[in-house]
This record gives sequence, C-alpha cells and structure tokens, in this order.
Amino acid sequence: MFRNFKSVEKTAYGRGSFDKLSDILQPIRSEKQSYILFCLDEYFADNDSFKSRIPIQENDFLEIIEVKEEPTTELIDRLRDKYLEKGLPAGIVGIGGGSVMDVAKALSLMFTNEGSSTQYQGLNLIKKPGIWACGVPTISGTGAEVSMTAVLTGPVKKLGLKCDWTVLNQIVLDPDLIATVPDNQWFYTGMDCYIHCVESMTGDFKNSFSEAYGFKALEMCREVFLELDRTDPRSDELLMVASYMGGLSLTYSEVGVCHALSYGMSKILHTHHGIANCIAFYHLEDVYGDYVQEFKSMISKHNIDIPQGMSESWDEATIDAMTEVAYNLPHMWRHAFGENWESVLDRDRIKAWYRRM
Amino acid sequence: MFRNFKSVEKTAYGRGSFDKLSDILQPIRSEKQSYILFCLDEYFADNDSFKSRIPIQENDFLEIIEVKEEPTTELIDRLRDKYLEKGLPAGIVGIGGGSVMDVAKALSLMFTNEGSSTQYQGLNLIKKPGIWACGVPTISGTGAEVSMTAVLTGPVKKLGLKCDWTVLNQIVLDPDLIATVPDNQWFYTGMDCYIHCVESMTGDFKNSFSEAYGFKALEMCREVFLELDRTDPRSDELLMVASYMGGLSLTYSEVGVCHALSYGMSKILHTHHGIANCIAFYHLEDVYGDYVQEFKSMISKHNIDIPQGMSESWDEATIDAMTEVAYNLPHMWRHAFGENWESVLDRDRIKAWYRRM
Repeated sequence: MFRNFKSVEKTAYGRGSFDKLSDILQPIRSEKQSYILFCLDEYFADNDSFKSRIPIQENDFLEIIEVKEEPTTELIDRLRDKYLEKGLPAGIVGIGGGSVMDVAKALSLMFTNEGSSTQYQGLNLIKKPGIWACGVPTISGTGAEVSMTAVLTGPVKKLGLKCDWTVLNQIVLDPDLIATVPDNQWFYTGMDCYIHCVESMTGDFKNSFSEAYGFKALEMCREVFLELDRTDPRSDELLMVASYMGGLSLTYSEVGVCHALSYGMSKILHTHHGIANCIAFYHLEDVYGDYVQEFKSMISKHNIDIPQGMSESWDEATIDAMTEVAYNLPHMWRHAFGENWESVLDRDRIKAWYRRM
Repeated sequence: MFRNFKSVEKTAYGRGSFDKLSDILQPIRSEKQSYILFCLDEYFADNDSFKSRIPIQENDFLEIIEVKEEPTTELIDRLRDKYLEKGLPAGIVGIGGGSVMDVAKALSLMFTNEGSSTQYQGLNLIKKPGIWACGVPTISGTGAEVSMTAVLTGPVKKLGLKCDWTVLNQIVLDPDLIATVPDNQWFYTGMDCYIHCVESMTGDFKNSFSEAYGFKALEMCREVFLELDRTDPRSDELLMVASYMGGLSLTYSEVGVCHALSYGMSKILHTHHGIANCIAFYHLEDVYGDYVQEFKSMISKHNIDIPQGMSESWDEATIDAMTEVAYNLPHMWRHAFGENWESVLDRDRIKAWYRRM
C-alpha cells in the first residue's frame, strides 16, 4: 500500500495553547483582510466564560453547531450560502468535538467548490483547495483533528469528503479543554481511539509506521483508562496525544469489524459513533479476543453503562438493513480478515453479531 | 513552552516508495515548468544502478554532494549561484544522509533569499519561503528529515538556518534505502537518535507530546540495536520510523549534555556529529546513568569501536576551546540541569568530561 499522506501544517500542543489562538489567527487576518468564522460546539453555547476566551473580533462571526445528529450536507450547504453572502472568510475555526472538526473541514472546502456538498462525497472529488481551516478539539478520541475525511450525512449516503485538501491547516491541542467533558462522553470518545487502534493493529494493511503510532496510542489509552485517575493532570494530556497518534496510525492502516458494524447501526438507527462502537466491540471477543476483555475492565473501572439487549427491539428488516450497510464496506473486511475474507464473513455472521447486542 | 510547529507537508513511507518519486515530482514539474535539481550523497556517486532509479529528466541536474565535512555556507552560496544561472528550479530533491538533507533545506531557502547564507544563520532570519524541497534519507538517525534546522558551517559560526520555511515539503521514507549503510555508520547515526531521545526525555523542557514520540523512538532503538539482527527486515523499518519520531520528540524538548560536548568537539576538531556523540556519551554515566550502560551493551553487541584515550593528544588550549563552545549553549544546560544549572555546571566540570574521553 503506497500512500503519500498530507499532514496538518501547523500544530500547537500544550496547556494554555488555546489562549494563543489570537496570535495564531493574526497572520491569516492580515493576509486575507477578511473575517474569521468560528464554529462552536453547542456544548459551550451558554458558557460565557469559555466564549469570552474565543478571540472574536468586530467583523467575525460565531456559529453554534448542533451536534445531536452528525453533520449533514444540508447544514454545510446552508452555512456556506449564509456566510458567502458576507464575503469569503479569511479562515474558519472549529472548536468542539469530532462533528465540529468535520464541519470546519467540510465548510472550508465548500466555500471554494461550487454546488452542493452531496456532489463531493467520496474520494478526491473536490476540485479546489478550501479556505484556511483550524481545529480546536474539546474532546479527544476520534482522531478527526488529523484525518483527511470530513464525514457528512447526505440524503443518499453517509460518506466523507476525502482528499488532501480536507486536512486542517492548523490544530490547537490544549489538554485543559477536555478536562470538563462529561464522564460518559469522555469514555465513549476515548474508546473510539482505543477501538480504532485495536482494529488498525490487528489487520493486514498496517506497516511499521502505523504500528509505531497505533501501539503507542494503545499504551496511552491503557494508562488513561486503567491506571490513572481522571483527575490526574496527565490523563487529559495523554488522551489528547493518544487521539492524535491514533488518528495518524490510520494513515497506513484501516478500521475493522467493529467500525463496519457501528456504521450500520449509525446509518440505520442514528446511534452516535462513539457509543455504537462500544456497543459493538463488547460482543466481538471472537475477533478481538483479549482486547475485548481489556475494554471490559475499562468499563468496569469507570462504571460505564454499555446498553445491552438492544437487539430485542430490532425487527428483521432493521437487522437486514444494518447488515447491508456493514457488508458493503469491503476494505474493512479485507483488512480484518485478509484476502480470503469472503470465506469467513457472510451476511449471516454479521446478523449474528447484531443479534448479540 | 509554547510552540506552533510546522510539519513536513507530505510523507510517503514504505518499501518501494523511492520508486514513486517520479509520480511525486510530476505535479511540481507541471506547476512550475522548470527543472528539478537532485542533490546526491557522494556515497552513491559511482553506484550506477542506484543512480538509474533517480527520475532525472532531460532538463534536470544532478549534483554530487561531498559529505566528508559538514555543509558550509560557501558550498550553499556557490551551488545557488551555479544553478540560478540556469533559472529557478521547480524543486530540489536531496537524496542521502543528514548533511544532504541540510543542503536541500538550505539551498531551497537560498534560491529565494538574496545575499550570502551567512547572513541567515540563526532563528527566523530568512525573509521568504524557499522553493519546493524534498528529502529522501538513505541513512537514519539524525532526524534531519523532519527538523526545522539546516545546519551550516560558516566562516564565523556553525549554526542552522532555522525557521518554519526550513521544514521540507515532502519526505520519502523507504526502508530499503538504508539496508546497505556500512555497519559503523549505521551504528553511529542510529545512536544520534538514541542519544537525542535520552537527552530529550531526561530534561526539563519535555511535555506529554514529546514524551510520546521520544519514549516510542527509544523503544524502537532498543529493538533495533539490542534485539533484532540487522538482517531482519524489521530492523531498517523500525530505525527509519525511530529517526522520524526522535526528530519529532525534539519539537517540544531539547538536547542536553552530550550534544553540548559533541558540538564543542565538532566545532574545534571537525569530528563528525554521530561519532562525536558516541565518544561523549560513553563517559556520561554521572548524568545519564543506566542509559549509558544500555548504550555500552549496544556497542558490545555490534562490536563497534568507540575511540578511547583521545584526550591524551588534546592540549589545554584545545580543551579550553571546546569547553568554551559547549559552555555557550545555555538552553541545553538549562534543559539538562534545570533552572539552577549554573550551580552544578561550570567550565571545570565540562573540562573534566573532555579529559575522560
């Protein structure tokens, strides 16, 4: 597998780095002589003390992004049209979770590419580089801060805008920002990192480069979720770096069985990605063995509820529909089970996994 | 310590990736409609089979770079003038060891910045971005492939051109290319990585980001130099990733005592960086404890000769001169010994270290 991957251009890591955002934006403002569009996770909508730290200047705009549902092509098109009327922004800054990172990445591209974002869902369909985009994660685990995908739900498909230009120009990684994430969400999103590292490290497509990142991220997840108290200052620091490295481990690898099942669930039932991963991974001991045991000890250490018995309320049509979504992700099955994956994976095996949940 | 660090824009890692160089250069050629300047380590000067793999086209140039001495400002200025006469290149590709990476980085900048490179030795003195530059390491350990410094020896000082624009635009990391490095050089250069990771991880300036990279690189160095045979294919893969990660660990940290002593030796005696590090580190058990023991077991496993008794031929003036160079690197001492470094470090202690060598 040959890949020539694009990196985030500039990275600021460390406690207090959020308060350098004003300095970071200065050259962008000077060069482009236009406004900055800040996209803020609705979690902070009423948090005035946090909002007062965002370096909003007179001509800038602040848009609150709803994250109950994952971002849609309709949202991106609407925001693009709304702000283009005010002129092309100098840059866009997304402050929030993985969905807000995806909004910043997608909007950046859609400011310069004409038509609806539905046209561009897929690999390398985007025609022109977007505007300057910066991500400030306030929750860690998804790896969206370093990935080349902006996942969007469209009328027909849930699929990313994926190309070199999707990668953010700047990220600001301030561990202080993730200190106040509610425990359940902290856990589910952290497990997104743990799970995609397990999948990345147990399949065919990995190489020594992705292994270095993936095993290191796993080690840091273990420290965060099995050894440290969440109140230990190192916990937030490690989780933020683990998310970053977990994202980079996927550069030369792929997710696997859990993500395939989880995508089926999210597409059909709109289950949030982090929790859908946890629900699926809990029942994948036949594939991921000791990693599932380790995951269960993390759950029990942190008294997290992973919903059980959900399949009792799923009728056959629902299970069929989820199975169809999952089955149609051949690159994940190929990675997880090798070239002859079709000899060990059929729709019945997928259905059996769903019925355990 | 706040840093907003610039990354190499694009990275291609993997066996065989060198043979993708032609594809990688295509968009650069198309955009700039000019020639590519290839700078090749003299090690390959007579290796026709290697040279035939370099994608040199009709209007391109190949320049052989001597690496017996580290690159000088005079070399950079001369090559800049020589090739500017032929027009501004579309890009520059450095293929070789750390010195050739430094030549590619420095030349890229000097093609667009007027006057002599001696004017720009230091931090952020460069006025304009350079031309597109690509590095293809053929020996691993220095971390030059990811660093923001191009070290040059000038008539007055040995000091890097250091700014965001020094960072390469593209790197091609092909583990096959380091398979034929002679054993001694393989070891000395690999130890550059081991030693700067030890220094980086045992000082004040590190943070969780640099620790993740530094400790992972150390772990990979251990596997390469203590566990694997050099003929094991994983050995070259791991060393190449260790060099990359070791370089990145310095983004938020600093080298220490060994590099300070080694700079003194290189400046006064022109000892090559890798071997100077090894000579100094061997005698630093009072600072780096078990790491020095570990280093000695690597030496003995690979039957490497580290020169001993060198100081017998050094007169007082030589030791004084080296001491002066080393003492005047306060950021390294501050990192290694903390805020009150002057209470534990004086010129006499430095001289005593040199006398042990």
